[in-house]
Amino acid sequence: MKYCSECGSPVSLRVPEGDNRPRYACEHCGTIHYQNPNMVVGCIPEWEGRVLLCRRAIEPRYGLWTLPAGFMENGESTQQGAARETLEEADARVEIGPLYSLFNLPHINQVYLLYRGRLLDRDFGPGVESLEVRLFSEDEVPWDRLAFPVVTETLRLYFADRANGGFSLRSGDMLRQPGEQRRYQIKLLE
Amino acid sequence: MKYCSECGSPVSLRVPEGDNRPRYACEHCGTIHYQNPNMVVGCIPEWEGRVLLCRRAIEPRYGLWTLPAGFMENGESTQQGAARETLEEADARVEIGPLYSLFNLPHINQVYLLYRGRLLDRDFGPGVESLEVRLFSEDEVPWDRLAFPVVTETLRLYFADRANGGFSLRSGDMLRQPGEQRRYQIKLLE
Repeated sequence: MKYCSECGSPVSLRVPEGDNRPRYACEHCGTIHYQNPNMVVGCIPEWEGRVLLCRRAIEPRYGLWTLPAGFMENGESTQQGAARETLEEADARVEIGPLYSLFNLPHINQVYLLYRGRLLDRDFGPGVESLEVRLFSEDEVPWDRLAFPVVTETLRLYFADRANGGFSLRSGDMLRQPGEQRRYQIKLLE
Repeated sequence: MKYCSECGSPVSLRVPEGDNRPRYACEHCGTIHYQNPNMVVGCIPEWEGRVLLCRRAIEPRYGLWTLPAGFMENGESTQQGAARETLEEADARVEIGPLYSLFNLPHINQVYLLYRGRLLDRDFGPGVESLEVRLFSEDEVPWDRLAFPVVTETLRLYFADRANGGFSLRSGDMLRQPGEQRRYQIKLLE
């Protein structure tokens, strides 16, 4: 951030009065520009014991498989966002169920909220951000071609919980190992 | 938003190519400025059957009581944010437990995430944003002087669940009634 989005003047990074951390502040009109984490909302779409995955048609992780999920938009609920992303990425209609996983990714200022979802019909297909969409049984999941560690961990917990006969909220932090782009430490909290 | 925070040129509201909703976009440098909901993180600090509430020293709802909670910051987890807000507003140290309530407030683009929290000691007091901080048993809670409907609903569910012997995640939407500033419809989902 270099300029004030309200008046167009240059901003500077300083600790505002009464605050305790640096913010981008406009010296001309006084606006403080807060920057906060984003939510990524999505679901695990279920159909007769299988789950729906999408193969990404966009970067990052082009060509790899993921759960339908994306940035929550203003004006919607987390559940509405999860259903919308499933419609956009997999052209699939779901009934959103309980929250299943909540993962913090503090190094990129994101919180993932993934719900269980029940596919309402088998009428699905790739949206513009997907190359391919299909149902996978547990032993068909392409574990070595999943796009994101948070998806791998959520699916791993999901199948383990299902084998154990019950689901409950799984929560944790995914911490990037210093100096390593693709290695994470996973701290499970619930 | 009137100006681009990257180059200072005027922005316009338009649907970018490949997108499906209007965004503020810079006609000069091409930056798209996404606006997304914020998380408010906090906790229900517990001590020997009582809960800690803070009386607000700031607007909105100056002088009314609330749970310690505030906007999640970049670089932290939801649990860290909940503990930080409790320290800042009540000068209290908590061990953050399970997520207890998740409420969507789509009319103001906020998602509340309130955890159960265990106070580590009785050494607490008002932070700069609080006039007063104290422990309340269920029958002492100032129900008619609580600051926010999301706090009232969370505490109501909390004491009901406690009376029933168990807590589980409570989730819902708080929808403002059209034309009414202070009346909400509460839709419980979990």
